Amino acid sequence: MKPMTTLNEARFDPHCLNKYATLMAAGNGYLGIRATHEESYSQQNRGMYMAGLYHRAGERDVTELINLPDVVGMDLEIDGAIFSLLSGEILDWRRELSFSSGEVMRDVLWRAPNGRRYRITSRRFLSAAQKSLFAMRLSITPLHGAAQIKLTTGIDATQTNSGRQHLDEISLRVYDERYLQGVYRVQGSQIDVSIGCHCTVTHAVNRISAVNRKLLQHATAHVAQGETLCCEKICWIAGDPDHTHDGFEAQNLAALKTAADRGYEALLDESRQAMAPWWRQSRVELDCDDAQDQQALDFALYHLHAMTPAHDERASIAAKGLTGEGYKGHVFWDTEVFLLPFWPETARQLLRYRWHNLPGAQHKARRCGYQGALFPWESARTGEEETPEFAAINIRTGQRQRVASALAEHHLVADIAWAVMRYVDITGDEAFLQREGGELLYQTACFWISRTTEVDGHLEIHDVIGPDEYTEHVNNNAFTNYMALYNVANALKHGPAARLTADFKAKAADFIARLRLPQADSSHVVPQDDSFFSKPCIDLSRYQALAGKQTILQDYSRAEVNEMQILKQADVVMLFYLQPGLFTPDVQKASLAWYLPRTIHDSSLSKTIHGIVAARCNDPQTAYRFWREGSQIDLGDDPHSCDDGIHAAATGAIWLGVIEGFAGVSVEQGLCIAPRLPQGWRRLRFPLCYQGIRLTLELTPTHLTMTTSAPLTFRLYGQSVSFSGQGSWAYQDFI
Amino acid sequence: MKPMTTLNEARFDPHCLNKYATLMAAGNGYLGIRATHEESYSQQNRGMYMAGLYHRAGERDVTELINLPDVVGMDLEIDGAIFSLLSGEILDWRRELSFSSGEVMRDVLWRAPNGRRYRITSRRFLSAAQKSLFAMRLSITPLHGAAQIKLTTGIDATQTNSGRQHLDEISLRVYDERYLQGVYRVQGSQIDVSIGCHCTVTHAVNRISAVNRKLLQHATAHVAQGETLCCEKICWIAGDPDHTHDGFEAQNLAALKTAADRGYEALLDESRQAMAPWWRQSRVELDCDDAQDQQALDFALYHLHAMTPAHDERASIAAKGLTGEGYKGHVFWDTEVFLLPFWPETARQLLRYRWHNLPGAQHKARRCGYQGALFPWESARTGEEETPEFAAINIRTGQRQRVASALAEHHLVADIAWAVMRYVDITGDEAFLQREGGELLYQTACFWISRTTEVDGHLEIHDVIGPDEYTEHVNNNAFTNYMALYNVANALKHGPAARLTADFKAKAADFIARLRLPQADSSHVVPQDDSFFSKPCIDLSRYQALAGKQTILQDYSRAEVNEMQILKQADVVMLFYLQPGLFTPDVQKASLAWYLPRTIHDSSLSKTIHGIVAARCNDPQTAYRFWREGSQIDLGDDPHSCDDGIHAAATGAIWLGVIEGFAGVSVEQGLCIAPRLPQGWRRLRFPLCYQGIRLTLELTPTHLTMTTSAPLTFRLYGQSVSFSGQGSWAYQDFI
Repeated sequence: MKPMTTLNEARFDPHCLNKYATLMAAGNGYLGIRATHEESYSQQNRGMYMAGLYHRAGERDVTELINLPDVVGMDLEIDGAIFSLLSGEILDWRRELSFSSGEVMRDVLWRAPNGRRYRITSRRFLSAAQKSLFAMRLSITPLHGAAQIKLTTGIDATQTNSGRQHLDEISLRVYDERYLQGVYRVQGSQIDVSIGCHCTVTHAVNRISAVNRKLLQHATAHVAQGETLCCEKICWIAGDPDHTHDGFEAQNLAALKTAADRGYEALLDESRQAMAPWWRQSRVELDCDDAQDQQALDFALYHLHAMTPAHDERASIAAKGLTGEGYKGHVFWDTEVFLLPFWPETARQLLRYRWHNLPGAQHKARRCGYQGALFPWESARTGEEETPEFAAINIRTGQRQRVASALAEHHLVADIAWAVMRYVDITGDEAFLQREGGELLYQTACFWISRTTEVDGHLEIHDVIGPDEYTEHVNNNAFTNYMALYNVANALKHGPAARLTADFKAKAADFIARLRLPQADSSHVVPQDDSFFSKPCIDLSRYQALAGKQTILQDYSRAEVNEMQILKQADVVMLFYLQPGLFTPDVQKASLAWYLPRTIHDSSLSKTIHGIVAARCNDPQTAYRFWREGSQIDLGDDPHSCDDGIHAAATGAIWLGVIEGFAGVSVEQGLCIAPRLPQGWRRLRFPLCYQGIRLTLELTPTHLTMTTSAPLTFRLYGQSVSFSGQGSWAYQDFI
Repeated sequence: MKPMTTLNEARFDPHCLNKYATLMAAGNGYLGIRATHEESYSQQNRGMYMAGLYHRAGERDVTELINLPDVVGMDLEIDGAIFSLLSGEILDWRRELSFSSGEVMRDVLWRAPNGRRYRITSRRFLSAAQKSLFAMRLSITPLHGAAQIKLTTGIDATQTNSGRQHLDEISLRVYDERYLQGVYRVQGSQIDVSIGCHCTVTHAVNRISAVNRKLLQHATAHVAQGETLCCEKICWIAGDPDHTHDGFEAQNLAALKTAADRGYEALLDESRQAMAPWWRQSRVELDCDDAQDQQALDFALYHLHAMTPAHDERASIAAKGLTGEGYKGHVFWDTEVFLLPFWPETARQLLRYRWHNLPGAQHKARRCGYQGALFPWESARTGEEETPEFAAINIRTGQRQRVASALAEHHLVADIAWAVMRYVDITGDEAFLQREGGELLYQTACFWISRTTEVDGHLEIHDVIGPDEYTEHVNNNAFTNYMALYNVANALKHGPAARLTADFKAKAADFIARLRLPQADSSHVVPQDDSFFSKPCIDLSRYQALAGKQTILQDYSRAEVNEMQILKQADVVMLFYLQPGLFTPDVQKASLAWYLPRTIHDSSLSKTIHGIVAARCNDPQTAYRFWREGSQIDLGDDPHSCDDGIHAAATGAIWLGVIEGFAGVSVEQGLCIAPRLPQGWRRLRFPLCYQGIRLTLELTPTHLTMTTSAPLTFRLYGQSVSFSGQGSWAYQDFI
């Protein structure tokens, strides 16, 4: 395997505290811990999150992913000076996340305001081997005479989600004068979280305090010039969202003790070994001119691993993974469309999350006057709708604006059905299709059948929001209608036998026969909805230049934007992505060209999708430009691009763009491959799992080489190929 | 009047952020606002409190004074640099609190890390004329080329009490694109707080946002070299603890608009004019060698004004006033013993606070198996016991230690009775005595009568904690028994006629006759309790050198301390202070000398009381040493002396020490004066109010000069003197 890349923070910049806290965040699917510095900065938001651990703080608040008590913070006072990189001078600096091990390292040579120099180095990782284990090391070497050092660290439960507190302090204990344990209960529940830590500090005298939600160890040490004070902190963080704990505290204390006995290096080694096979089975390797492309892929896979709660099918992936509080840690359609394809084994479980939550979706459908299952636009642990009622304030009216997504962005229902079929097509998991998958298809289809309005003998779907959220409350959004059709057709085909009553079959057939399906116009452009073509168009270039920042809303109200041909993100183009065979290449090309100047890409879900569709339209250079821009949504220069968490979907899209765009992998009645590598990409190598078969693909600008764990038939540029073991094919023989 | 002193922060020191935030805090009895810097520092605790506004955040939490949303914070970004005094260089610095106006001013010449220089000046005050009004001004002058300035400020409701949130966001509104208003509801109640602000920024373009509990105005400005950007922020903060609001939001918005129209300077002038008569009627003026003594007195009076909720008799004075969250904003005996004497008009109301809370005290008495009223050791708005169950963690056992005060520190009951009599003696308010006072005396007396244990024909009071909290669960604490006697005797004398049944009278007489009253031993020392003399004694000098920090608890457990002759604070000496006529001067001198080496003064209630008793024992130099040390409890060099709020009682004691100690004012069957000025004090001048008569006293080392608003008879060194208008007396004629 090619050497893994790293992510480096080139210099200390107070504007970038939260960007790098997100980019370098640790995660193992169970916990996510933001990569905040040990010392505090007022602009720096600390965060530790546990997958699926949500709570609503107050009557008027929204359920959110709980920000747990902090263990990262360490207050340092060296020779009387409070250590802060804002003060004094940074003489040398290195900060790096190793994607392969997940270890974050910082090495600073600091000159204090009083002129004395110190080397301060820290390392930390969240274990891939033991989900509850987080470990840190900090060392301080005075270079300019002996130093008096005070180090304070422990468990800080003053953490909140922007001032909202979710946890009651249940018990604070110190065992053997050195194991600190705090147990915190989610307010109004029986769910406890135990946070323990053990901290050894060489040279030090220790004191412990428990005041104002902080359980702290205060170490004081005298360190000679050139000697190194070492602090090793081992933390054990465990929760039980379903409350089954007996001996919860004792169990976690014992685990902490065992881990602390082993020490940082041994624990890191264990974690690294646990990660190695994952990387071998997942890595996408790239030889190309720009090293950033390989870095973007390593970054994406690192975070895909970090965000995925493989251990718990009652949890799913939040829009910001486990890296921040954006979107309150809620789950959107992003998971089904952008994240499922990556990892078939986990996809099943993420679909079971939806299946578990069918009651909530059925309840919402009833409440809104529909049948079947209307999944919530935003969901947390239960299937309840969690979308906040209000968003930003409208300074003209003085009032906060309502969020319409929960009321009308119903395409999510069909997206879930699409994800079921995608999963089944890729894995061949018939057992899932017969049970959870079939039920999901059936319930979602029932929703769509009940969602129609009859107009002139046709069935129409009125008052929806498509993927483009700048166009609200329209009729016959093409994306929605075609996806609904796909949904109902697949329910009819794969729904559970007991559900496919004559009545349902008749209704489904009628739906399929009479649903209004927007057709391309004479210019081969598919209309986004009934009214879109009739709206005026303005020059969007200045807003496109600041894509992602929604600057248009500074100049126009949402109502005004709604009445123009302005797309926040791929809509018809998203439909092309999800159902590539639905329209001719001509229609796809023409529509892509027509919608592009009308699309701002204010959503992170937009650019890479355009890239994939452009690649399929045989325009790999446009595809590469979009992919590259998409890969820089978080990694790019904007210091606040991801303050409140990574864009999980955009991270998944980095992988999707390469696999589905440039390698041209798709599953349409079998595995299809149609490589179109962008210029400068000399070699692309990645593993795939298809119908239980392990494949390795290696693409060059001219050849595809593939190994398979079992005999395989696939199509290359549309031509069927069968092989076993290894094969190699020149593209020119197939085009 | 002599010119008023100021309080200056000599230099910017990150260790002292919270000390000066406390010392320079603004207060008007209704609101208290910590003097935090406009820009944020991670160690800096912002705080705004409303008298009497408490809440309990969680089941296992304690009721606490709510930390309200912040209005002080202003994030500044100048030419791309986040303004922080930790970075760059401070070329010039001045920060000052004017005691006379309450205005805090900071003037900084700052060189940014990029070398550019800026003058940044801020001023602010909380109005003495309009309790809800807080105003700020900030100006920035670029001295080194033009500057691009971003200023963000507004209402920040992410504030918590150490992570505990008490408020739900009810409504966020912007009126006329410039008046910001947030309404916050105390969780689980109907009590709302409205916070409004209006912020004008010269040169600026403004944007408003409402995200994550922050309602913010973002101003962006380009300022030429030498020009000054001015930001004027007017805030209106109103709450209604008793929820009587109709049109609450509209009313407060209207008040904000009116205030904003008038502008900073006019509002400051109005506030200054409102304060002027208060200072004229209250100021203690001093000519002496050390200017710090006058400053300590001005400081004390400034804070006595700031902390006293003169507008609301359902609120009292917290142990930290309105300056911080120490002791959770709870009310202790400090109020009755240290703060009441200062201000007779308000004393009545503070006693009515106890009278209103009699039901809670009666309930607690019943719950503990007693009769009458057992006031809670710590109270908030209701009369419920608010003492936290647990305090610091014991690292040997690993468990948090229980707080025993609520269970056994019962002397508070008699202290309240003492305060009733003190108030009546000073004011002659018979109406109060007949109603609230009499009832308080009666109910507290009933408690004591039920609190006894019969031993050998005597009545004893067992298992109490006296003022000295290092000696727990003792029998016949001298302070408690003598104060209980005083309590019952005065109830018998002044209780409401209807309450003084034959049964009560008999019981009270029996209590008085048979109560065990510890007597001085052959060395004239009064024993603190039954067992105190039998305990071993150790050398406490190293702990005394760090008085106030409770360092002894680092070497000994509380249980160990309890079994030695170790006093946290004045106990028998406190009894001498409260009842000076109870023991002969010989006993007082001998006891004072005996207890001194055994007293650490780990409580802020200790030193000044020793000073007053020493003064009465004719040792003005020892008295001065104690007074001086007491006056430096908050003002002294310790950078963390008052991080979580001023010591309100110690502040009151600065005044008490001068009036009762050095001027020797007391009320014992009439007004008594016995001056004993310390060396170096050339002139002491102060007003007093006695029985409705306005007095001005001026003391020199040799003479007393007094003016009176009505004919007055008083005793000077025990000799009766009558006069009217003005009189002057040489001490030598009376000694």
